[in-house]
Amino acid sequence: MFVQNKKIQDILNYYREISYLQKINSVLDYDLNVSMPPKGSESRASHAAYIEELIVNKWKNPKFKEMIEDVQTLELNEFEKAIVRNIERQGKMYWRVPEQIIINLKKETSIAFVKWSEAKSKSDFSIFSDSLERIINLLIEIADHIGYKANRYDALLDQYEPDLNFEMFNNIAQKLRTFLSDFVSEIVNSKNYSDVNSGFDTEVYYDFQDQKRLSEFVAYKLGYDFESGRLDVSAHPFTSNLHRTDVRITTRYDLRDFRESLTSTIHEVGHALYEQGINPEFDDTPLEGGVSLGIHESQSRFYENQIGRSKFFIKYIRYLLNLLFNNVRNQSDEQLYRFFNQVRPSFIRTEADEVTYNLHIILRFEIEELLINKKIKVKDLPEIWNDKMHGLLGIRPKNDREGVLQDVHWSYGYIGYFPTYSLGNLYSAQIANKMKKELDIEYLISRGEFIEILNWLRKNIHIHGSLYYPNELIDRVTGEDLNPDYFIKYIQEKYSDIYQI
Amino acid sequence: MFVQNKKIQDILNYYREISYLQKINSVLDYDLNVSMPPKGSESRASHAAYIEELIVNKWKNPKFKEMIEDVQTLELNEFEKAIVRNIERQGKMYWRVPEQIIINLKKETSIAFVKWSEAKSKSDFSIFSDSLERIINLLIEIADHIGYKANRYDALLDQYEPDLNFEMFNNIAQKLRTFLSDFVSEIVNSKNYSDVNSGFDTEVYYDFQDQKRLSEFVAYKLGYDFESGRLDVSAHPFTSNLHRTDVRITTRYDLRDFRESLTSTIHEVGHALYEQGINPEFDDTPLEGGVSLGIHESQSRFYENQIGRSKFFIKYIRYLLNLLFNNVRNQSDEQLYRFFNQVRPSFIRTEADEVTYNLHIILRFEIEELLINKKIKVKDLPEIWNDKMHGLLGIRPKNDREGVLQDVHWSYGYIGYFPTYSLGNLYSAQIANKMKKELDIEYLISRGEFIEILNWLRKNIHIHGSLYYPNELIDRVTGEDLNPDYFIKYIQEKYSDIYQI
Repeated sequence: MFVQNKKIQDILNYYREISYLQKINSVLDYDLNVSMPPKGSESRASHAAYIEELIVNKWKNPKFKEMIEDVQTLELNEFEKAIVRNIERQGKMYWRVPEQIIINLKKETSIAFVKWSEAKSKSDFSIFSDSLERIINLLIEIADHIGYKANRYDALLDQYEPDLNFEMFNNIAQKLRTFLSDFVSEIVNSKNYSDVNSGFDTEVYYDFQDQKRLSEFVAYKLGYDFESGRLDVSAHPFTSNLHRTDVRITTRYDLRDFRESLTSTIHEVGHALYEQGINPEFDDTPLEGGVSLGIHESQSRFYENQIGRSKFFIKYIRYLLNLLFNNVRNQSDEQLYRFFNQVRPSFIRTEADEVTYNLHIILRFEIEELLINKKIKVKDLPEIWNDKMHGLLGIRPKNDREGVLQDVHWSYGYIGYFPTYSLGNLYSAQIANKMKKELDIEYLISRGEFIEILNWLRKNIHIHGSLYYPNELIDRVTGEDLNPDYFIKYIQEKYSDIYQI
Repeated sequence: MFVQNKKIQDILNYYREISYLQKINSVLDYDLNVSMPPKGSESRASHAAYIEELIVNKWKNPKFKEMIEDVQTLELNEFEKAIVRNIERQGKMYWRVPEQIIINLKKETSIAFVKWSEAKSKSDFSIFSDSLERIINLLIEIADHIGYKANRYDALLDQYEPDLNFEMFNNIAQKLRTFLSDFVSEIVNSKNYSDVNSGFDTEVYYDFQDQKRLSEFVAYKLGYDFESGRLDVSAHPFTSNLHRTDVRITTRYDLRDFRESLTSTIHEVGHALYEQGINPEFDDTPLEGGVSLGIHESQSRFYENQIGRSKFFIKYIRYLLNLLFNNVRNQSDEQLYRFFNQVRPSFIRTEADEVTYNLHIILRFEIEELLINKKIKVKDLPEIWNDKMHGLLGIRPKNDREGVLQDVHWSYGYIGYFPTYSLGNLYSAQIANKMKKELDIEYLISRGEFIEILNWLRKNIHIHGSLYYPNELIDRVTGEDLNPDYFIKYIQEKYSDIYQI
């Protein structure tokens, strides 16, 4: 057993109930998204809120905090230290922020979601504006209670990515921004642009069952364990961790475009493989689960982009596509590869390609930092958004729906979350660069041999669960800190080739 | 609001959390049966056990018992009285039985289920025998702690059907036994026997999707609210009450026999309509949910048999069957009606027809009473079972699998449960008899008009939830106590006609 200290064992026994309750809430949430009939939503909300209340009570029990304080001066091993560290970080929200603020935020966000939905459907930001302002004010209070060194935004970033701070991400963002803005212009002005972006016949209908079977096969091939999971359909694809032994994924099917289900499935498989691969000894402890949203996204992006959108995967997958889809058979490997890698400045983040994607994140990151430090006003957001979008991508949203209202995150109070999407992209390129030194992944992928790749990720990343913080993990895996140059190099090489720049 | 008393309101506030936890466990259980991947079972068991533990703690909290004791002498209205009564009845198990016995029973039943599965698959009762003996001994202890007036078995019967006792059911059983044993002989010896029981071509394949759409349509027609529920597939059909607003049903499909999915769906719809129709004011209180297993089964049996297997329903449904299944089109209404009502002495309860079904229950009832009063030994059960089966149905099982090992119930420690299945049949005939005096249900059914029938059940039964105990409810609905003559008359008239006796 990795834990020797008796007091830490007591902490684990206490924490186990928190873990159980979190997993039970995951079942309720999965069911809500996949199975629940519409009229069930009110009772489900009560049930989920009740479990949430039990979790809060577990955290706020003075006994628990005492147990943690009681081990501060002890000599602990690596595992034990990480357990205490993870609890202390999670505990900040419960121990430092007055309960009334948390309750107010919960109330506010449940109203805000409804307001946001209405505002988006009417494309009118003013409907959502007051709600969002109250949420920002509450988050400012929360950040001040949690505490931070340099920038109030740090307190919120740390909630999603341990030890991430504004300065660190801002350096990355500025570097990315400079490179990507120029590079997108080069692509848009390349002579290959319209040729690459033409695609094939859009009047074709891709059978739902065919797409489903393809998704199942690809998930299986990549190493997803269907004995510990299942593939369902939902409006927005997600991975649901009901336990290491029950990690479910969803995808969605577009009958006009087979890329949608295929890339969504591969993305979620990346998340799921991480959870399925964590050390079973960590089950039900603070070391279970992926360590951060950024590292999680690195796994999904590794599978989606480094594998799924590579020339080598296209070479493999085209044999399968040939079996199913008539109009793919006439396309060369190169045409098909381009079809999966079209770059086009667009308004909607979730539909963005690999090159423009991070610019969408930088936009949100800059706005969030300004909001949380009270440098801009909520009511001015639509204009600020549109101006920034124009500055970053050279296009200007025609309305709020395709501008500031597109994402649900802020209505949930998720401020500081978006940067982790970019981190995922950067980590994945850095990890791929390292892996290529040890494995001939291009050959393996082109032949549809994925197990060695999975084993490499298992050994270097998955198995560790939440033992190492992202900085330490990426250092252990690649021998250096997070370095955006790998991503920049990857993007430059891949798309210079595609667009013949 | 139906509750005026402040102290009862406090009780309801306390009880609400118990209700939430029960519903949360229902979600876990539904998911386990419908969605869970195989490797998830171990963690799911921990999560369900944890919720169970929270429920037990809620019940055993001395504060709760004090609250109940505190209202004993107050003047309460009808609703308030029923609330206290229901809590006291549910509370017996928690308040009177020492915790260690409950824990031992839980341990024993989880082992027993595995032993039973193995024993059944090997058709060898001796594998299960010791486990069952320990369960019986624990249940004897439990019954003695709960207390009873005349017969130890009463304490167990009451757990499933409030106020049911051995004497009451024994009188019914003896009356049924006499009639049914003779009547089955008459049927088997009737000159129509082989003709009625021949059925049609069994080499036909009934498309899964066609059967599924038929089940959906019929459920909808009968009044099932798909906005508050859904229809899934499971090995054993069941109804899952996740809340009044989320009552899900399952069915199973036999590609060789379209009757299986159709009658299973109708049966579960009967259960679900009951839950969907309960007074919303009772939500999350001890008045929510159907009052007993027997009344619940009366609703499922009413729909399955009184409606679904009636001549009038066949007249209606054949138009739908004609649309889907070629080989139905050549059959007369009469032939189709007989096909749904074949009587045949057989070994397996769950496959039994309306006539022989109650004999299977009487067999179990008699054995359970003997076991719980230590009049027979567990190890002798296979012989006792086979002898009794021969006495009741004139056939003798060739092995334990089709004899004493066929049902899972005893491995769960469910002793006293089986009689409620018979009660459902009896209640349903008595209710149908009453309904016919007020509604022309034969005409309505034959035209596929089910709403008036549902409204009648809603008004007379469903709406009341757990307000009235079964005895009182059946008296209010039909003007008399439970009377098996209605069932006997129904069976006699229906099957004398079919078998031309």
